[in-house]
Amino acid sequence: MAELKRLKRELIHKGSIIDLYKDYVEIPNGNIAEWDFIGHKGAAAIVPVTDEGKILMVRQFRNAMDRNTLEIPAGGLNSGGQEPTIECAARELEEETGYKSQELEFLISIATSVAFCNEMIDIYVAKNLKPSKQNLDDDEFVDVEEYSVDELCNMIFTGIIQDSKTISAILAYKEKYCS
Amino acid sequence: MAELKRLKRELIHKGSIIDLYKDYVEIPNGNIAEWDFIGHKGAAAIVPVTDEGKILMVRQFRNAMDRNTLEIPAGGLNSGGQEPTIECAARELEEETGYKSQELEFLISIATSVAFCNEMIDIYVAKNLKPSKQNLDDDEFVDVEEYSVDELCNMIFTGIIQDSKTISAILAYKEKYCS
Repeated sequence: MAELKRLKRELIHKGSIIDLYKDYVEIPNGNIAEWDFIGHKGAAAIVPVTDEGKILMVRQFRNAMDRNTLEIPAGGLNSGGQEPTIECAARELEEETGYKSQELEFLISIATSVAFCNEMIDIYVAKNLKPSKQNLDDDEFVDVEEYSVDELCNMIFTGIIQDSKTISAILAYKEKYCS
Repeated sequence: MAELKRLKRELIHKGSIIDLYKDYVEIPNGNIAEWDFIGHKGAAAIVPVTDEGKILMVRQFRNAMDRNTLEIPAGGLNSGGQEPTIECAARELEEETGYKSQELEFLISIATSVAFCNEMIDIYVAKNLKPSKQNLDDDEFVDVEEYSVDELCNMIFTGIIQDSKTISAILAYKEKYCS
């Protein structure tokens, strides 16, 4: 395995959820490669399972994709990324779906875009859902929908669901709990 | 579903594989939200299956993650994103693993980071692999390793594999071909 040595990380832009840096990396042939790096503070996501075994999903407009997407609930870590991911998961579940759970079980961690970004998402399964109150951010608009695991799998293979955290989460949930 | 209207997209930084923009989006309460947007030209990835049913994986140092990762082979689309994803998949398979295939079957498409980036990766399954020649980019250093699907699943649930395209691809492959 080749060892690469980062010589410098230069801030280009400080954003609200991401920061852009230019990295200068010495590669084994001695050359200096210049690679863009996106810094992200991390996130948590939830597979909310109803007592009937259905999954609660959120549909929302995603500016970056220029369209609506169907995803599991998720959100960025508070406190500059210091919030424990299980607390973020519990909070986002309640804020986005209007249900809360005290039974959150860790499923998997994913790195969304390893080629240029350090974003990590810890994904939890939430059971024993209790009605609470949806509490969205000012710029957040979310519809909640309910599907069976088989319906969601079908939507993954027909391209209706494309979000990587959702595909990873639903297929991991099915593999761990339904096989 | 709330309709959001993008008023302006402003280029902040033009990079080699990603560009950073600031978007000005009118939200339903009339306020203007400023959201960062990362433009990406798209990519293709491959689940290379040997005649024995093993999967070829690549291990490489990922600067953004500050560590080595174990992933399926993948790479960005050439020709400014105009390259057909199946051609990119065939090319990257040969370049990164040293094997080629004329049997590529579409598996799924994923959007890696819908909250801020438009990156899409089309994932193909490659069978009937024939030895060819590894041909890496100057700044690319990759080891090729071979695992069973069950070994890879175990690595997903124990956190050894975290890359979202790899988790999506391996679990989708298992769901479609091995269940």
